[in-house]
Amino acid sequence: MTHEAGIPLGIKFKLLSDTPQDSAAQVVSEVVIGDYRDLDTLRDFARGCDVITFDHEHVPAEHLAALEADGIVVRPGRAALAHAQDKGVMRARLDEIGAPSPRHRLVADPADAAAFAAEGDGFPIILKTVRGGYDGKGVWFVRSEADAHDAFRAGVAVLAEEKVDFARELAANIVRSPHGQAVAYPVVESRQVDGVCDTVIAPAPGLSDELAGQAQELALRIAKELDVVGHLAVELFETVDAEGTHRILVNELAMRPHNSGHWTQDGAVTSQFANHVRAVLDLPLGDPRPRAKWTVMCNVLGGDFPDMYSAYLHCMARDPQLKIHMYGKDVKPGRKVGHVNTYGDDLDEVLERARHAADYLRGTIVE
Amino acid sequence: MTHEAGIPLGIKFKLLSDTPQDSAAQVVSEVVIGDYRDLDTLRDFARGCDVITFDHEHVPAEHLAALEADGIVVRPGRAALAHAQDKGVMRARLDEIGAPSPRHRLVADPADAAAFAAEGDGFPIILKTVRGGYDGKGVWFVRSEADAHDAFRAGVAVLAEEKVDFARELAANIVRSPHGQAVAYPVVESRQVDGVCDTVIAPAPGLSDELAGQAQELALRIAKELDVVGHLAVELFETVDAEGTHRILVNELAMRPHNSGHWTQDGAVTSQFANHVRAVLDLPLGDPRPRAKWTVMCNVLGGDFPDMYSAYLHCMARDPQLKIHMYGKDVKPGRKVGHVNTYGDDLDEVLERARHAADYLRGTIVE
Repeated sequence: MTHEAGIPLGIKFKLLSDTPQDSAAQVVSEVVIGDYRDLDTLRDFARGCDVITFDHEHVPAEHLAALEADGIVVRPGRAALAHAQDKGVMRARLDEIGAPSPRHRLVADPADAAAFAAEGDGFPIILKTVRGGYDGKGVWFVRSEADAHDAFRAGVAVLAEEKVDFARELAANIVRSPHGQAVAYPVVESRQVDGVCDTVIAPAPGLSDELAGQAQELALRIAKELDVVGHLAVELFETVDAEGTHRILVNELAMRPHNSGHWTQDGAVTSQFANHVRAVLDLPLGDPRPRAKWTVMCNVLGGDFPDMYSAYLHCMARDPQLKIHMYGKDVKPGRKVGHVNTYGDDLDEVLERARHAADYLRGTIVE
Repeated sequence: MTHEAGIPLGIKFKLLSDTPQDSAAQVVSEVVIGDYRDLDTLRDFARGCDVITFDHEHVPAEHLAALEADGIVVRPGRAALAHAQDKGVMRARLDEIGAPSPRHRLVADPADAAAFAAEGDGFPIILKTVRGGYDGKGVWFVRSEADAHDAFRAGVAVLAEEKVDFARELAANIVRSPHGQAVAYPVVESRQVDGVCDTVIAPAPGLSDELAGQAQELALRIAKELDVVGHLAVELFETVDAEGTHRILVNELAMRPHNSGHWTQDGAVTSQFANHVRAVLDLPLGDPRPRAKWTVMCNVLGGDFPDMYSAYLHCMARDPQLKIHMYGKDVKPGRKVGHVNTYGDDLDEVLERARHAADYLRGTIVE
């Protein structure tokens, strides 16, 4: 999707990919198959690139440091990425800059997790490995000390967080360039199912201008303080206390185009992908404003049937305004294989159209 | 641009390209370098393709016939493409179906051209080689018999047409699928400079609903009668007679995504490229309706400076809503190297923004 956005800008991509089957490897013209965990592979790859960027945060920090020491331009840089790679580092830094977070601390073992729970309102709590988690992986909902053992099995440091009783999840997406120019997209509502992003609504319905402004300002401040270059997604919890006061807490950070920004491909003047490319090349950024009153994104998950072709025909024929984005992946149950965007003036109708298409493509409905 | 539109649809492209420097060859993942005039090259290329389509009309008709005889699916097919490849065939067929054309006939030599002029209002007349012309090439504005010799030098049959005293040029763009499903884009105004498309305004300002409907109906009828599959651009003259009656005449046909449809990338729900891909794969077509009140496209021509980079930065910074589409071509004076799209509610402002960006990129203005 970043390549797609780079074509009109005249930007040429070289891709380092694990396998020729990766989505990006199917459409980019210059592909190197190799392991991003191998420094020699990275060094060979980086030769001749004006700038290196990422679609995940897993390139080892020491390799990024080595590339930077070689004079390779890496955006976002190693120092910024450290906060997206390690949730412990991220939480410590957010505390330093006064960003609101759930109560948290690193815990050493299940007994320490129980102590963390006792320091607050008791169980349940959330345990997360500080590295390697995504889409609900590496995250445990823990009801008791006995429940806590799984989180420590990977041998990765574990962060404990209070279980936030949130009203909903939001995301504040911004893009920042090395110049320090930054643009903020409308704050969106993100609905998760089984820890996986399911639906994104732009803008977040009913969100007060005040809280939306706070969320955007927070995301811009985090980007500046952490020296983020490119797209930054700040995933947030929105809470409502007994007095009816709404607040936001930072849940996660992602320093790359993010699922909560896929709606921008069809719903914003400039997509997150185009602005990420502009930012990492230090080009002036494009207008992030929405093009429709409401835009809805629903992820398409694989269902029981590996062949989506007839469902694909049905959805296109049923809704000629539907924007389908498929990733060229083999269909496996529960795997994200694409997403759909819809937009319009009536939120209920826009939501229904996206929901119907995603469900029909997955095969959970047949009419 | 067709590849770009195919990515979200999950469509994989294989490209036959003259050189690795061609715009498409820079971004498509599977590229075969070869000569489209060589049948063996075409046959080797076609193996394993579900469908073959084109971004120009110059593949020899006999080769298309051979591919179709091999069972290769070619869309649009040879029989339809014959009308876009040969202006004589096109005019004869348009006459058969009663489509309005300028007065015309094939002429054998300069004396016959003079006879054609005398049959009507005299010189000036237009001479065109029936094959191989584009962007003003292969077209002569002829004021006398002596003027007419150039047109016959290529040894290609020559079509004479009256010089139409048109008020402006329009284009009616439609897309048709093998199923017979068809969609019509709003009729646009197309402004040419030195025979090259310069500006397109969607929809055509001040065009009556009646004439717009006639133009769309005509394009749909031509597509059906000629069995066109994919995008069809019908370039039109709009005339106004002494009584103030507006009429349309067919100027040219193009059976592929066309410069007069580039505005759809940012101005329509579904771009001409996406709908061309959908049509040639016989997928249901997408909504052709505009997303803005006005959309303007201006072509970016090369100027005297081979490096557009600083102009590119300036235009992005000046207008964050500007949609730039660069083709990755070396800049040469007068060469089409990209286009820009702008959209909004105020036509004057939208026109000024596109015009400014195109002029600044070319270097004809510096502020």
